[in-house]
Amino acid sequence: MQTERTKISRMPKRGNYEPEVINPILDEALFCTIAYSIDNQPFQIPTGFCRIQDKIYIHGSVGSHFLREIVKGIPVCISVTHLDGLVLARSAFHHSVNYRSVVIFSKAELVDDEELRWKVLEEFTEKVMKGRWNDVIQPNEKDMQKTMILGFSIEEASAKIRTGNAKDEEEDMDSPYWAGLVPIKQVMLTPEPDPLLKKGIPLPNYLEKIGSNF
Amino acid sequence: MQTERTKISRMPKRGNYEPEVINPILDEALFCTIAYSIDNQPFQIPTGFCRIQDKIYIHGSVGSHFLREIVKGIPVCISVTHLDGLVLARSAFHHSVNYRSVVIFSKAELVDDEELRWKVLEEFTEKVMKGRWNDVIQPNEKDMQKTMILGFSIEEASAKIRTGNAKDEEEDMDSPYWAGLVPIKQVMLTPEPDPLLKKGIPLPNYLEKIGSNF
Repeated sequence: MQTERTKISRMPKRGNYEPEVINPILDEALFCTIAYSIDNQPFQIPTGFCRIQDKIYIHGSVGSHFLREIVKGIPVCISVTHLDGLVLARSAFHHSVNYRSVVIFSKAELVDDEELRWKVLEEFTEKVMKGRWNDVIQPNEKDMQKTMILGFSIEEASAKIRTGNAKDEEEDMDSPYWAGLVPIKQVMLTPEPDPLLKKGIPLPNYLEKIGSNF
Repeated sequence: MQTERTKISRMPKRGNYEPEVINPILDEALFCTIAYSIDNQPFQIPTGFCRIQDKIYIHGSVGSHFLREIVKGIPVCISVTHLDGLVLARSAFHHSVNYRSVVIFSKAELVDDEELRWKVLEEFTEKVMKGRWNDVIQPNEKDMQKTMILGFSIEEASAKIRTGNAKDEEEDMDSPYWAGLVPIKQVMLTPEPDPLLKKGIPLPNYLEKIGSNF
């Protein structure tokens, strides 16, 4: 949603406020960075998250100083960035990167509904590795007691995206320098079994194709 | 340096305050996230940067709202995060990620020394792609006038690192679930020449090995 805070002032044509654009950027990200402020001193924490409908959720220890600060409902700013490539232009000045980023302005809401808490942990685990939730020791009551879950509305969010080639000045197009893109990708490599893994446990199906997709 | 703000309260054994640990994490990162606050409303911007000795530097348009806010010298918090792998434990509760992150507390200083400004742009370009600075149209006077460069002391910084395998409860070690690591890596793929590249310009030497290192 476009508000005074989310409005993209620099390069506004790269900005977007639609959930159809914002959600896939969030869903692809394995972590976000959460900023909050105490007496105008900003702090930042990178943390895992998952999205369910129009909210994102994080979790952590009930003893976490960070969670205990933001659960008070102070304003937070959350960002996610995917770096998709280097843009090598003919001129140093026009060098750039291709990226997809999202910035969210929100406030934490404590999730205390047990069903939703369970659903968040399932969604989180499945986001990290699809298929994992049903192939793992699921949380017990003690685990759940130790875990705080916070939700954040993503209504006030904007995406900023750069794609495509170098944009050099007209008079530089004929210069003798190479120009082009160097794509960047985050990849998962071949899974490595735990050295203490019990003998006879095979690699699960859902991990078989990991490490071969690039 | 360990201060009240940089001290790692959660999992302190993962914390570190030494430049020998912090600098390589910064140098490997292609962007950082800068948080600042106005009336306790936090904001965040991802941006490229480079390090020279004990400072990091960013640059952007003199018209940037973000740069014009932080050049005032308000407190900023800067973070960098590398995700190195998924840690799939036997229990959902002990799932984790391997990562290397740095958090810096600092304030912007305007860089107005022309020699240093030039050096920052060279360093920045070389960080993005080693060998590029001498194979590009270097900035002209107009480019330099349009560019603001800010430096940040990285004296007050901490690193937080998780490496290694899953840490399951003793009683779960014999469970029938697979455990292990899924390494994650950010890779550069084969360079793609600009569709408008002047004919006869070969791929530069420094790009020849890109895309084959994984």
